Amino acid sequence: MCELLGMSANVPTDICFSFSGFLHRGGGTGPHRDGWGIAFYEAGGYRDFRDPHPSVDSPIARLICDYPIKSHVVISHIRQANVGEVRLANTHPFTREMWGRPWCYAHNGQLSREWSNLPLSFYRPVGTTDSEHAFCWLMGELRRAFPDPPDDPEALWQYLHRLCEHLRTYGVFNLLLADGEHLYTYCSTKLAHITRRAPFGRASLSDAELAVNFAEHTTPDDVVSVIATEPLTDNENWVRMMPGELLVWRDGDIQGRYHT
Amino acid sequence: MCELLGMSANVPTDICFSFSGFLHRGGGTGPHRDGWGIAFYEAGGYRDFRDPHPSVDSPIARLICDYPIKSHVVISHIRQANVGEVRLANTHPFTREMWGRPWCYAHNGQLSREWSNLPLSFYRPVGTTDSEHAFCWLMGELRRAFPDPPDDPEALWQYLHRLCEHLRTYGVFNLLLADGEHLYTYCSTKLAHITRRAPFGRASLSDAELAVNFAEHTTPDDVVSVIATEPLTDNENWVRMMPGELLVWRDGDIQGRYHT
Repeated sequence: MCELLGMSANVPTDICFSFSGFLHRGGGTGPHRDGWGIAFYEAGGYRDFRDPHPSVDSPIARLICDYPIKSHVVISHIRQANVGEVRLANTHPFTREMWGRPWCYAHNGQLSREWSNLPLSFYRPVGTTDSEHAFCWLMGELRRAFPDPPDDPEALWQYLHRLCEHLRTYGVFNLLLADGEHLYTYCSTKLAHITRRAPFGRASLSDAELAVNFAEHTTPDDVVSVIATEPLTDNENWVRMMPGELLVWRDGDIQGRYHT
Repeated sequence: MCELLGMSANVPTDICFSFSGFLHRGGGTGPHRDGWGIAFYEAGGYRDFRDPHPSVDSPIARLICDYPIKSHVVISHIRQANVGEVRLANTHPFTREMWGRPWCYAHNGQLSREWSNLPLSFYRPVGTTDSEHAFCWLMGELRRAFPDPPDDPEALWQYLHRLCEHLRTYGVFNLLLADGEHLYTYCSTKLAHITRRAPFGRASLSDAELAVNFAEHTTPDDVVSVIATEPLTDNENWVRMMPGELLVWRDGDIQGRYHT
C-alpha cells in the first residue's frame, strides 16, 4: 500500500513540516521504498517533483524540505509498488490538462484485475499502473460529461462522487485529486484530516523528532487543512473520513461533502 | 528572446556540462531572467523541473547540476518574457499526453498578434503565452491527423514540418519537441547543433570557466548530440541549422531532415 498527503490552505503555505514526517515513511519508518512525488499549485501554475527512489534517501526530497514552496494546494504520494514496476512512469502524482487547467491525482489502494477494462477516451496512461489507468478513465468520464467547466460546480462534484463510488467497486480506492483551486479527497478505506486555525498551537510529528509551534509561523486568519492516509502528528485530534465519503476542500475549508 | 537547449543520445547521458553553461545565460552572462525549465525522459518516464526565478540563482538548477539525471532525450529553456507575465504557468517546457506518451515542447521566438486565432481542439493552454497556445494548436492538429501512432513515422514527420512552416508565418518559431524517443528541432531563425562521438575530445564552455574531457566520461560507442540557440562551447565546430529546416533526432543521430 502507498501513503497519501494533501493540503488545502487559504494563504500560500509551505508543507515542509508535514512533508518531513511523511517522507520518513518512504523507506525510513515505513515500507514505501518504491518512489515518491509531490505536486504544488502556485499562482495559477503547477509543478511536480517525482523520483522513483526512496524519499528518505532522495536529494530532491531534501531540496523540497529545505526550499519552502508556498502553495494553496499540495498533493504528495509515497509508493509501495503492487501493480506496475518501479519506474518514473509509474510514480505518482499523475497529471493531465482539462479545460486549460492542470489536474493532479494520487491513489492509495489496489484495484482488482478488471481495471484494465475501464474504457478510455481522451486520456491514455503512460505507465502500467492500475492507478493511472483509473485516473485516465475518471478524467475522460468527467470530460465527456462536462466538455466545458460547468456553471454549477456542485453538479461536477456529485458526478465525481458517483465515479469514485464506481471505482470503489473495483477495489481499494483512496483518492487525492486537485484542479488547482479545489482539493478532492475520497475515502475508500483510510484517510484522515485536520484543520489548523487560530488559536494555533504546537504539533509534534509521529515519524520524526520534530515539533513546530504554528503560532510563530501564521497570522490569525490562516486556515490550513492537511489530509493523510494516517495522522502525521501525535498530539492533535485528526478526523477519520468515512468509507464512501468525498470531501471538496477550498481555501482550507470543506465546501462540499458527499457520501454513500 | 529565450534560449533553447536539447540533447539526443544513444545511451543515458547526463547534461550537467552543457546545462552548467546554459544556466549562466539565465541572469548571469545573458538577459534571460524570467524563469527556466528542463525536462528529462528516463526509461519510458518523463519529469520536468521548472522555476519562474532566474536559473543562475535557483537552488533547483543547482540540484540539476549536482545530481546527474541520465537521459536519452532532454529539453531545456531559459526565458526572457515577451508575451505573458513571469509566472510558473508561463514557464517552459510545456507538456501534454498524446497516444499515452508525454510530449514536451519549448519555443524560442515571438509570434505576431494573430496567434490567438490558431484554433484549439483537444488541448488548451494553462498560461497566457503565445508559445503554449501554439503548442496546443500543434498537438491538436497532429492528433486530428493521427488519432493513433502512424505505422509510417515519416508521414508524421512530414506533417509536423508542414505545421512548423505554418507557425513560422506567424513570427519567429524555433522549436524543440520530443515524444520520448525522438527529438524534433525546427529552425526559424537560430539553432545550432553538434554531435560528439569517438574519438572524444576536450570541450570548454563559452559562458563559464569549465572544461571537460569527454574521453574520460564515455565509451567508444556513445553518440551524443546537443542542440542550442547559440553554440555552448568555443573550441568545437557547431553546425547552424537553415531557416525552415526540421531535423528528427534519435539516439544522437539525425533520422529525418525536411526543409522548405
